[in-house]
Amino acid sequence: MSSAADQITFTGNPLDRASDGRADPAWIEARLADPQSLFLPLYRGDPLLRDGRAVFLASAARADIPSRATAVFLGVRNDRAHFAVDLSEAPGPQDAPFADFGAYTPLREAAFALGEAGDDLAIIGQARWLLDWHRRHRHCAVCGSMTEIADGGAKRLCPGCGAEHFPRSDPVAIVLATHDDACLLGRGPHFPPGFLSALAGFVEACETPEECAVRELREEAGVALSNVRYQFSQPWPFPSSLMMGFIADAKDRALTLDVREIVEARWVEKGEIQSLLAGVKRDDIKLPPRFAIARRLIERWAGQ
Amino acid sequence: MSSAADQITFTGNPLDRASDGRADPAWIEARLADPQSLFLPLYRGDPLLRDGRAVFLASAARADIPSRATAVFLGVRNDRAHFAVDLSEAPGPQDAPFADFGAYTPLREAAFALGEAGDDLAIIGQARWLLDWHRRHRHCAVCGSMTEIADGGAKRLCPGCGAEHFPRSDPVAIVLATHDDACLLGRGPHFPPGFLSALAGFVEACETPEECAVRELREEAGVALSNVRYQFSQPWPFPSSLMMGFIADAKDRALTLDVREIVEARWVEKGEIQSLLAGVKRDDIKLPPRFAIARRLIERWAGQ
Repeated sequence: MSSAADQITFTGNPLDRASDGRADPAWIEARLADPQSLFLPLYRGDPLLRDGRAVFLASAARADIPSRATAVFLGVRNDRAHFAVDLSEAPGPQDAPFADFGAYTPLREAAFALGEAGDDLAIIGQARWLLDWHRRHRHCAVCGSMTEIADGGAKRLCPGCGAEHFPRSDPVAIVLATHDDACLLGRGPHFPPGFLSALAGFVEACETPEECAVRELREEAGVALSNVRYQFSQPWPFPSSLMMGFIADAKDRALTLDVREIVEARWVEKGEIQSLLAGVKRDDIKLPPRFAIARRLIERWAGQ
Repeated sequence: MSSAADQITFTGNPLDRASDGRADPAWIEARLADPQSLFLPLYRGDPLLRDGRAVFLASAARADIPSRATAVFLGVRNDRAHFAVDLSEAPGPQDAPFADFGAYTPLREAAFALGEAGDDLAIIGQARWLLDWHRRHRHCAVCGSMTEIADGGAKRLCPGCGAEHFPRSDPVAIVLATHDDACLLGRGPHFPPGFLSALAGFVEACETPEECAVRELREEAGVALSNVRYQFSQPWPFPSSLMMGFIADAKDRALTLDVREIVEARWVEKGEIQSLLAGVKRDDIKLPPRFAIARRLIERWAGQ
């Protein structure tokens, strides 16, 4: 985290989440009315970009925000409250409010356009994460009633049964398996040939991320792991994964692929990785982009 | 993980979760009918203990399991499928089926009775986690419809809107803040005086566990952290927390407590910790039990 270029994408959110303030409805109302406050519009999780920057609307624009739109509190920076506004009800991004201010841009494209670091991406990620969760959790899972937003969007309350519901963060173990001077890269069926990455899977009930790493590599590739070493994490707002990155030792290089999960996997020597990281193009191996934690794991291992 | 006594409680689950098999309803049906299968009864998340061991019912007992009871697949060991059965509908633990086989015992007590390690605790934790999630997620959060169990309990499906729902694992950062040769211990208002532990909080939307650690210590104790170092994790089935353990450096020893969260906090010298770990009793400091990750963090730091 020594420089912006090293910062992992979607981390480094500069906002103070103000968990005290947001729990007070009067405080939230005052910040919504504050002319200093800023509003980040999203269309189905995608930010509005203009001249390579995310558009944050000044409070004067609030008059054009549909009253039905969900607004959630993100945090405070320099005494200015930031809110995200969900404008997903329009039939298409061109029809959404404020579309003439810029272009609603798919978040993966925006992650390229906004650079690898950038405070904006962390804020946009948080906004997408929260709005998506609210959109898909309008009902109480306990009793089925319609729930209500509370704490500025930090939770939902059920007026039927009293249950509280909090946004999800789904932990994922993503693992660079290594054997001597090679690492294991693979791809699922939804990636084109050559687009290889570290293997990953969701942490299951009552499982540590290290146990998940061992299980996933055994299930998906038939690889026995040991010495599973945590490196760093990345929140991944597609929609709500907490990617926990590991490097681990494989017992040998034998592979037994579960082809429903992994259709291509290979051991790649460190020298090949270093040449790919230096910019050499190959059709048979394309490394993940720098905004993905898998790339950062590969870089760390190759630099060791 | 070099010995059973070192193993963190609720880790080391010996079952193969058989994610291939469980996705096939016919396979699940066959395992339910298999005379080799075992059934772990739980009453509101608490296991049935007899002679200091958890009771796993042989399939012959299935006739006495109410047909309405939720059964979820846990995994396979030595070719025997293990299922958990939710017997929570009885008015009290003494009235639940099989109560005459032993005693339904609160899980925290069971964690003492079953020893610090023990495969049984990891299996019971998984069972409690899954059954609790199913009990509190009968409805679809998207549309409110009643959902149906699928994949042996690894997910729920909504017949109304088609949404899939998966069990939650809620990541928590638990942090031992240190300054020179002292560590920070505190307690929330729900603990009695003297029962001190490491500070902790839930990871929020689009946040890394390290960012959460920094935020929580700032919010709850006014402490500025740096060099936040991951140690190990513990799944904590009360009801579904993934405790990620960190040790970190505090800038100084000044404390500004948020008394709604932390009513007592103090810096404790390493020598004092070592004497407490050696068994010296003090009324003003009681360390957490060994089945809690906080104790393991303290032990690791004190042993360094």
